[in-house]
Amino acid sequence: MTDLSNGAAWMGGTIIPVQDAAIPVTDWGLTHADTVYDVVPVWRRAFFRLDDYVDRFIASLTAGRYDIDMDRADICSALHQMVAASGLQDAYVAMVAARGRNPVQGSRDPRDCTNHFYAWCVPYVHIVKPDIAARGTSVWIAKSVRRIPTDSVDPKVKNYHWGDFTSGLFEAKDKGFETTLLLDHADHVTEGPGFNVFAVFGDRVVTSDHGVLHGITRRTVLEMCAEAGLQTETRLLPLSEFWRADEVFLSTSGGGVIPVARVDDRHFSNGTAGPVATALRAKYFDWIMRDMHRIPVQFETEDQT
Amino acid sequence: MTDLSNGAAWMGGTIIPVQDAAIPVTDWGLTHADTVYDVVPVWRRAFFRLDDYVDRFIASLTAGRYDIDMDRADICSALHQMVAASGLQDAYVAMVAARGRNPVQGSRDPRDCTNHFYAWCVPYVHIVKPDIAARGTSVWIAKSVRRIPTDSVDPKVKNYHWGDFTSGLFEAKDKGFETTLLLDHADHVTEGPGFNVFAVFGDRVVTSDHGVLHGITRRTVLEMCAEAGLQTETRLLPLSEFWRADEVFLSTSGGGVIPVARVDDRHFSNGTAGPVATALRAKYFDWIMRDMHRIPVQFETEDQT
Repeated sequence: MTDLSNGAAWMGGTIIPVQDAAIPVTDWGLTHADTVYDVVPVWRRAFFRLDDYVDRFIASLTAGRYDIDMDRADICSALHQMVAASGLQDAYVAMVAARGRNPVQGSRDPRDCTNHFYAWCVPYVHIVKPDIAARGTSVWIAKSVRRIPTDSVDPKVKNYHWGDFTSGLFEAKDKGFETTLLLDHADHVTEGPGFNVFAVFGDRVVTSDHGVLHGITRRTVLEMCAEAGLQTETRLLPLSEFWRADEVFLSTSGGGVIPVARVDDRHFSNGTAGPVATALRAKYFDWIMRDMHRIPVQFETEDQT
Repeated sequence: MTDLSNGAAWMGGTIIPVQDAAIPVTDWGLTHADTVYDVVPVWRRAFFRLDDYVDRFIASLTAGRYDIDMDRADICSALHQMVAASGLQDAYVAMVAARGRNPVQGSRDPRDCTNHFYAWCVPYVHIVKPDIAARGTSVWIAKSVRRIPTDSVDPKVKNYHWGDFTSGLFEAKDKGFETTLLLDHADHVTEGPGFNVFAVFGDRVVTSDHGVLHGITRRTVLEMCAEAGLQTETRLLPLSEFWRADEVFLSTSGGGVIPVARVDDRHFSNGTAGPVATALRAKYFDWIMRDMHRIPVQFETEDQT
């Protein structure tokens, strides 16, 4: 038996250990960061909101003009087969389309490339450790960089252009902060590496709708707020307004709702996790167990019955 | 004997066929486009301006905080060894540093990653076919995208964030143009995929110094202009001024000086290669044979003497 305990990958129809999965150094997916991807969580042996994640991935394929010669059913089948083989109960599951290699020597025409799909999964990733998240994390607003503008690379088409985030992360880590938040060129709050950002003003919850990925967890938060009787606003969020928030929190497929206790030298909710964020965090872990949003991983043992 | 006729790669000290060289799907080099790289041409069995290219690569390593545990001599040795093994007379030689994998499960700290160096070479790439270049190529100014700003990702640190270029290339190719040129957010001319841009006004040659890679071929052009008694200006180049140029040309390590006959629906130098660009193109192919800029590839047969 192949050891898939570190995770698995689906490469060209074959399941292999994640650590053995690789792409060519001349693939435009690497040399031009020419990929789109998505990440769906698996929790307690079921995909959460799989259709929503795959919808967004397919929209990214269309926007980026990738032809992977697989339809929705093929993609879902690959993900089920891979996660089942891995045996993981809770997983971070990535699906990726890459532009591929250009078979025409010297060609710079992206239409000549051989696009391809692959996927990989590893044990569930918490982008902030759960104990830190529970008591409220720390966020550094990047000073040396601004988020790549939407008219350069569209953040709604989920992509690997993370140079701005990486610069922000170096700044944050050097200063002892957990993560970073980027502003746009007009001092609006955008997003951070792997998360959307929310500000709470009384019973109003505000998040940006511009220059950001429209996260599926962001959508879950907006739906949970509606259920909890909180007002929601999706719009430009100026930094000057953000500073006046009662609470701040992050949303991510890698850990759900993450309260923020501190941004730069400003403490929110007295330097702890705020009550709204804490309630939404608990609610998220309920929602990911709701049958209506869950598609059980088709494990091999189940297939054989 | 391994077949290296398509090119070779240097991976962890071993020379392998370029088509077998790959990096892990979980390497931040891929998942965060977290690489810096450089490309040096080999022409008639010698590196052209190798020191300049390696200087720039080392500056990129420092700016991006990569620790590849190799010094200048190690890098040059890897390149010589690889190109020699490939047997290529004229080659496109890439050196790359990648952030690598993060051994700490779930860590988002770039400082935890295991950085690494690799290199690969393929037969020399002309980014525009020589026959088209000689009679003047066509350039489409991208309308749907602007160049990623310098305060999001610094173009002087040579990197794989090509999403804006790829969008521009799709536009250009759909309209039947050879390549694309991107503007910044204030309507200045910046650069295109793999090249700098020059505008000629009488005996003055102007190229941008902002929002662009400081190309080694760009430097060669500036030096060739000085030798030819042409004035040079490196500064912001507004699109409105660019339209009034007598001639336009591109500079690239993938083909030298490339005259431009047409930008959008505007013909330059009567829709042909202009005289200044044509002269500089010829001069470039002389310069790359000048001993002062050449470092012969240390072929194995020579090592054995």
